[in-house]
Amino acid sequence: MDNLNSQQAPQRRPHIASPLPKCSDLTWRMHARQEVNYSVSLNTGLLKHTNATLAYGCGANGVQPVRRLVVIDARVNELYGDEFRAYFEAWKIQVVWKVMSGDEAFKTMDHTIEVAQAMAAANLLRRNEVVIGIGGGVLLDVVGFASSLYRRGIPYIRIPTTLMGQIDAGIGIKTGVNHDDYKNRLGTYYAPSSAFIDPYFLQSMDQRHISNGVAEIIKMALIKDRELFELLEEMSSHLTPKAFASNDPRIKEIMSRAIAGMLAELEPNLWEAELARCVDYGHTFSPSLELLAEPALLHGEAVAVDMALCVALAAGRGLLSCVDADRAIDLIEVAGLPVSHPVFNLQLLEKSLIDTIKHRDGLQRIPLSEGIGQTAFVNDVTSAELAQALVWIEQRESRSSEQSCVA
Amino acid sequence: MDNLNSQQAPQRRPHIASPLPKCSDLTWRMHARQEVNYSVSLNTGLLKHTNATLAYGCGANGVQPVRRLVVIDARVNELYGDEFRAYFEAWKIQVVWKVMSGDEAFKTMDHTIEVAQAMAAANLLRRNEVVIGIGGGVLLDVVGFASSLYRRGIPYIRIPTTLMGQIDAGIGIKTGVNHDDYKNRLGTYYAPSSAFIDPYFLQSMDQRHISNGVAEIIKMALIKDRELFELLEEMSSHLTPKAFASNDPRIKEIMSRAIAGMLAELEPNLWEAELARCVDYGHTFSPSLELLAEPALLHGEAVAVDMALCVALAAGRGLLSCVDADRAIDLIEVAGLPVSHPVFNLQLLEKSLIDTIKHRDGLQRIPLSEGIGQTAFVNDVTSAELAQALVWIEQRESRSSEQSCVA
Repeated sequence: MDNLNSQQAPQRRPHIASPLPKCSDLTWRMHARQEVNYSVSLNTGLLKHTNATLAYGCGANGVQPVRRLVVIDARVNELYGDEFRAYFEAWKIQVVWKVMSGDEAFKTMDHTIEVAQAMAAANLLRRNEVVIGIGGGVLLDVVGFASSLYRRGIPYIRIPTTLMGQIDAGIGIKTGVNHDDYKNRLGTYYAPSSAFIDPYFLQSMDQRHISNGVAEIIKMALIKDRELFELLEEMSSHLTPKAFASNDPRIKEIMSRAIAGMLAELEPNLWEAELARCVDYGHTFSPSLELLAEPALLHGEAVAVDMALCVALAAGRGLLSCVDADRAIDLIEVAGLPVSHPVFNLQLLEKSLIDTIKHRDGLQRIPLSEGIGQTAFVNDVTSAELAQALVWIEQRESRSSEQSCVA
Repeated sequence: MDNLNSQQAPQRRPHIASPLPKCSDLTWRMHARQEVNYSVSLNTGLLKHTNATLAYGCGANGVQPVRRLVVIDARVNELYGDEFRAYFEAWKIQVVWKVMSGDEAFKTMDHTIEVAQAMAAANLLRRNEVVIGIGGGVLLDVVGFASSLYRRGIPYIRIPTTLMGQIDAGIGIKTGVNHDDYKNRLGTYYAPSSAFIDPYFLQSMDQRHISNGVAEIIKMALIKDRELFELLEEMSSHLTPKAFASNDPRIKEIMSRAIAGMLAELEPNLWEAELARCVDYGHTFSPSLELLAEPALLHGEAVAVDMALCVALAAGRGLLSCVDADRAIDLIEVAGLPVSHPVFNLQLLEKSLIDTIKHRDGLQRIPLSEGIGQTAFVNDVTSAELAQALVWIEQRESRSSEQSCVA
């Protein structure tokens, strides 16, 4: 399939024609700059009454009462609702609560409108009454989306309570919902005022959802942080909910490296003007897998399967040594993540690559790890190469403990 | 009613608390700048095949074929569809057409989604295949909104075909839809690649819709352009569809002054960081009137009624001389616009001011003309003053040709 390589040459013709034909027309050129600022904090004890971080973030000082809309994930509300209520009361924050499901099925335009209606019902001022979203990636995507649309944008705070949310989905500026069988087809770029990350909430997650988040940490390690990779190897049998909620300095370093790495990649490219993004590692083929897999895969699980393929592709091209390729696959597996899936076959890879090329404006722009901790972008992956990579993974799995490599 | 003045003191507490309490937490501060550029052109003969302006704006060069989605107002399609088709064909632009009603009733989230679905069906690349919107303010608001949401933003071009669109609604970056009985309750700020204005399309408008646009031109004159005001006075009995579509240099100056004035106000405040906007003149009380009036008023008609009230308020405060106040009201009336309305009573004024204060984040921020051609903002308009202003207009109307003034 030749068109895997490039659907259309990315001729970046400026939409503002220049030079315009000389005629008697008048043309005004508008130019403006929007400054975006927000903070991401890794906190411990966010809900301790003596900790002013969250209260200040909400614009409260504990003396004058303020009124805020809080949109909270139903499950998080069950587990931590009382603690939040006590904290808000202590800081004189009068809360209008909106409890919502954070399941993927709720990541829709209808639920975004529902949140916007809660904003209207709460009768919020336009700029001064920040909305607070508490939950996983889905809930924060929906709350952020509604915040960006309501009166063309009102301020909001993100409090991610899942590992995936804390190191990835909850700390950027992307919002959005699924539509018509496409993931995140409708959305906006809209920065929160701040994001508060407290690993305390991770204690109540199950192991599978912790592994889901670990997939994105492994991604960050593979593409830009060899030390993080080694730390993950060292801790690979201790990546549990309890450990993540603990004060273990090695876990804290894993968290802070993952967050810092993500933010460093986002900051110079917040609006994705550059479509070759190393954080898209593992996100080239996984969107189609995530849509098709039954029973459903978690996002990080689909990313893990895609990462394994990319490890094989990199090994096949000599970008990754046999040893490093094996270490990468080992780490994915030890973290409790899949490296293959029955529907992740050549046909799906070809189809999803075509979709991805469209999303990346005409080129593959596939990030591959170059060694462990660096990224190379490729635009010329062929069907034959994909097939070979699938075979490599299959053979490796069947030989399981044995060392193996295509190269 | 005391709370007309201020609902809540606008304490602009920063949402990013600073200084954060000293603890072992890690905080990252994100900072980025988004550059926004777009052009607005006043063209004559946009659809002449020899005029490359539109083709270049669409990224076509007449040699290599390109494919574009065009969303066009149904009525404009009836009148000018063939000319557009011939132009696009001449420039090798293969068009996927989406014909939509541009009536206010279609300014909804559902129709925005419908346009997004047309984008999905047309299988657009993410950054390189500009969408073209052709029609009045409603259609352009919806197309702009859909463009901002689809894949979190794809490029689009605005071709406003109404006077209101050409000098106001179609040349900024606001998009949006009405929701739940509120105007523009959901929307985004999203700049087009370019906006092309050809007065040629105005020939087919009816007089009432021309007057509708003239209301916003009068606004611009009152708040910042005394020369424009005098030009409008001079031409006041010639503001017809035919005249606007003609090459009369005085009409062209009216158009270009109105556009230039609007753009000059927008450029430094594109995202409305500053809520005291002189272009909100006539838009303080009119949103409620526009929602309630039966039979429906056009936007500019409601703005005209609001402007007349603001003229009276300014005269009452001595901001406007008796002579200038009368000139302003005269111009509004000669332009075929209303200066009062049965439902525009004290009760409606009080209610709508409360809504507006919420939208302006706690303060009235009412722009009033200070003399003709300058603006003063006031935050302390009282009910008694509003009542007095209504009486002034009523008395003036009953005395009709006689000179009158409160001051």
